[in-house]
Amino acid sequence: MNIPDLHDPALAQRLQHKIDRKTKPLGALGRLESLAVQLGLVLGTETPRLEQPQVLVCAGDHGLAARGVSAYPSDVTWQMVENFLAGGAAVSVLARQHGLALTVVDCGVRHDFTPRPGLLVRKLGPGTADSSQGAAMTPAQCEQALANGRGVVRDLPGNALLLGEMGIGNTSAASLLLAALTGQPLADCVGAGTGLDEAGVARKLAVLQEVQRRHAGAREPLQALAAFGGFEIATLVGAVLQAAGERRVIVVDGFISSAAALVAQALAPHVTQRCVFSHRSSESGHALMLRHLGSGASALLDLGLRLGEGSGAVLAWPLLQSACAILSEMASFESAGVSDRQDR
Amino acid sequence: MNIPDLHDPALAQRLQHKIDRKTKPLGALGRLESLAVQLGLVLGTETPRLEQPQVLVCAGDHGLAARGVSAYPSDVTWQMVENFLAGGAAVSVLARQHGLALTVVDCGVRHDFTPRPGLLVRKLGPGTADSSQGAAMTPAQCEQALANGRGVVRDLPGNALLLGEMGIGNTSAASLLLAALTGQPLADCVGAGTGLDEAGVARKLAVLQEVQRRHAGAREPLQALAAFGGFEIATLVGAVLQAAGERRVIVVDGFISSAAALVAQALAPHVTQRCVFSHRSSESGHALMLRHLGSGASALLDLGLRLGEGSGAVLAWPLLQSACAILSEMASFESAGVSDRQDR
Repeated sequence: MNIPDLHDPALAQRLQHKIDRKTKPLGALGRLESLAVQLGLVLGTETPRLEQPQVLVCAGDHGLAARGVSAYPSDVTWQMVENFLAGGAAVSVLARQHGLALTVVDCGVRHDFTPRPGLLVRKLGPGTADSSQGAAMTPAQCEQALANGRGVVRDLPGNALLLGEMGIGNTSAASLLLAALTGQPLADCVGAGTGLDEAGVARKLAVLQEVQRRHAGAREPLQALAAFGGFEIATLVGAVLQAAGERRVIVVDGFISSAAALVAQALAPHVTQRCVFSHRSSESGHALMLRHLGSGASALLDLGLRLGEGSGAVLAWPLLQSACAILSEMASFESAGVSDRQDR
Repeated sequence: MNIPDLHDPALAQRLQHKIDRKTKPLGALGRLESLAVQLGLVLGTETPRLEQPQVLVCAGDHGLAARGVSAYPSDVTWQMVENFLAGGAAVSVLARQHGLALTVVDCGVRHDFTPRPGLLVRKLGPGTADSSQGAAMTPAQCEQALANGRGVVRDLPGNALLLGEMGIGNTSAASLLLAALTGQPLADCVGAGTGLDEAGVARKLAVLQEVQRRHAGAREPLQALAAFGGFEIATLVGAVLQAAGERRVIVVDGFISSAAALVAQALAPHVTQRCVFSHRSSESGHALMLRHLGSGASALLDLGLRLGEGSGAVLAWPLLQSACAILSEMASFESAGVSDRQDR
């Protein structure tokens, strides 16, 4: 897929120079400075402004959940969708705090929702098939999920997209995708998800090893995505590709959203230039995943979060706003009449 | 000094129970959860609300700066105070972003400021004396600085105080305080400050070793504070003590603000129960200082910041608001009708 390289050394240099002339020691705003340069490059300007940011929470059920890979029953997926829409979930509360619009997409939840504002139904089925028995989805479903994600983002306003998801069993799919796309041992990719104990993780790993053996040949990104699922991850892959193509800033949440970014990166390597990785999840495997996403994937927050929903992306959002404010509002040594270092 | 222990296991348990019943896996909001418990304990309620938060930036000059311990000239202190008041400094921009009131205190800057809103003059002199020649301040000045800090906070509204500072040379004072109050080797306490190169750090260390030898007996907190300075740090110590006594939430910035918290903790150990440590600075010595401030001092952000001014405290501020919002606005399993884990 054709996502162009954002390589623009002249703009990067202008952005860095602008930051270096701000009234502070060189580099003293640390990670916020590299973030400001990135936002400038993505939006193609020395004065990036984040406009009409959108939180997109994609939800779907997983056939594999029937194998007991999660501490919670599958019904929690639809119940949490109701909770998102009623405003009581963590991501709802945090999005409200920061004035962010929230859209929930039913990508394939095992439940029929009453239509209402804020909910888009782009259902591919009542959950994926059990990936321990066959492919989680057909190639056609996978293609349709990508198209759905593209279409949803195309219709959303703004120049920034925050990714979130919900789907009981989806850390399993994300772990399988991580192992398939990076070749890392599955044991290093599997963690406690919503809170399995040690024995639970061991059982989960055994199930996932069985799934991995069944789909040993599925190493191409879309093959692996169809084999392991889920509908919400595939829809997010489409969303990432569309947002990247439109040069939106993409704020990635935790382990599952990052798995969608990993698949998108495998399809179009320059996607991650547009991605801000909001936090490092305490889900085992996320640190490994961030390393594979490349050097630009240094996460902003490290707060031991492992909730998903987009909660980490929303928590990090004010830092993106701060990075823009630094660029546009801070005085320079010249404009403020502040003396520069003694050795320059 | 009498700062009472906030020990209230019943309230702590109620807060933890409330968080555990929220619609999320146990512990899934990580550090945000312990922050919510802390804010509840400080404000003495299950529904903490942060009201009229105040950023307090204390500024002062250091006689030791004449010994070349900083990359910047002392004039930058007053120039930056002007920049704070004009709204062009990082802390001004970030405070504006988050709707935080900003008060700048001239605790002893080598400059006479035109009076204006937002500036309080509590001057103890035109900078401290050179601590390589004698004490940075007299015991009377030190006591007066503490009283000033107390008085300034007493007159500010709200239940949350964000600490910031400005003073060319003040990483030197903070390093000397760290070494004196913890007994750690000075070499482990000294860093690049505003950006010294390796040779500059070596020269700074040599000067600070000389200062340390001169004041080898100054190990009591107020003795050390008077010996090493500065006026802005001593004023912040008073501010911390007053805020702690009033049970305000205290948001500590980086290396210098933490040094003020370290002195305050040495005077009244329970002070740090009220302190939220906003970030781990990249100033060498801050990690060590946070360790000495105790287990409650796990910093929220780790963004390679080393600017001071209160910039890190203000960047972390939305996380405190999020912690309160989680407690007050998030639905519980019961209220949202969400199924709990399968094994409970």
